[in-house]
Amino acid sequence: MQRHFHEELETLKQTLLAMGGLVEDQIRRVVRALVERDSDLAQEVIERDREVNTYDVEVDEKCVELLALNQPTAGDLRFITTAMKIVTDLERIGDQAVNIAQRAIELNQEPQLKPYIDLPRMADKAQRMVKESLDAFVARDTELARRVCGADDSVDAFKEQIFRELLTFMMEDPKTIPRAIRLILISRFLERVADHATNIAEMVIYMVESKMVRHTLA
Amino acid sequence: MQRHFHEELETLKQTLLAMGGLVEDQIRRVVRALVERDSDLAQEVIERDREVNTYDVEVDEKCVELLALNQPTAGDLRFITTAMKIVTDLERIGDQAVNIAQRAIELNQEPQLKPYIDLPRMADKAQRMVKESLDAFVARDTELARRVCGADDSVDAFKEQIFRELLTFMMEDPKTIPRAIRLILISRFLERVADHATNIAEMVIYMVESKMVRHTLA
Repeated sequence: MQRHFHEELETLKQTLLAMGGLVEDQIRRVVRALVERDSDLAQEVIERDREVNTYDVEVDEKCVELLALNQPTAGDLRFITTAMKIVTDLERIGDQAVNIAQRAIELNQEPQLKPYIDLPRMADKAQRMVKESLDAFVARDTELARRVCGADDSVDAFKEQIFRELLTFMMEDPKTIPRAIRLILISRFLERVADHATNIAEMVIYMVESKMVRHTLA
Repeated sequence: MQRHFHEELETLKQTLLAMGGLVEDQIRRVVRALVERDSDLAQEVIERDREVNTYDVEVDEKCVELLALNQPTAGDLRFITTAMKIVTDLERIGDQAVNIAQRAIELNQEPQLKPYIDLPRMADKAQRMVKESLDAFVARDTELARRVCGADDSVDAFKEQIFRELLTFMMEDPKTIPRAIRLILISRFLERVADHATNIAEMVIYMVESKMVRHTLA
């Protein structure tokens, strides 16, 4: 039974990583759809969100089952409850990919305002934060988790830079306003991806280091 | 022990409702700070976010403790794990109040662009959704939860209306762009409040109706 439980925990980790890989890929694809002005690809991203939601339910069910059928000790208990929260963040990262896809499709109906340079870089950064936050979770690696939290500042810097640049476009030519605002919104969606990764990283630190929990339950 | 456990569950509910009351009040105050151009009040909202975070930790600890020291049955187990997720949404609603407060302080440094009519209405709607989603949770009331999910459309309609109105301001006079964008962002923050309430309501429906969980654990 104990051995079985730890195999189940391992499966849970692998499922979470697979889900993480899927949402990372969604971000990667939606940014390609934006940069290459490929609305079909953006549409695919929207449709594939169903797979993300299926993972959400699957992980959630698995966690409740693990809690119900075993009496996990403090560390494993905290791991499972943290997994339940992390899966919600992953699911919402998937929602951001959908949000970006919708704006990309709208943008593709008009001439391109400018070449997109900073947005793909920002997306790359945010996507790496997602990957590392999950790696930190499965390895209970607080050092990596802290690096993820630190990376949030550089994503915010991208957001500010993108905003300032688009502001000059809008000020110079009001006709650019609707497109510029869509691009600003996309940068905010990417910021939210990074925020979710930061949330995950913070939960990892809390899970590993929370003295209070250990005192109560050890 | 059984009786004690149900008293603890009751305390958990009351704490969640108290936390919900606090974040609702944060929304109410930050909108007053915006409308009355009261930066001191906005600053108070920012500082009071610490109380929201304290609740977050408190509820989380209580839930883990309840899971560890009892062997909750399927329904109670699902209730506790849902509470752990809901508290994260409440904490992030608190973050939106902080986001709005920061934009309000910036806006108060310039002349007011226009009287704010729709934003307070939108906030009122979003705030009521938060309240009702929590009421639905503690009463396991799926009918109320479904009404909350339905209300999300009217919040989206406010968001669109606010966007269109501000777009005309920006098109007519580019000097209004920075202020208009701040107001657009505030409407997006309110949208996220409503999204969190919808998330909570969806979790309530899932908690109460999920056949799959009952089959696995009953």
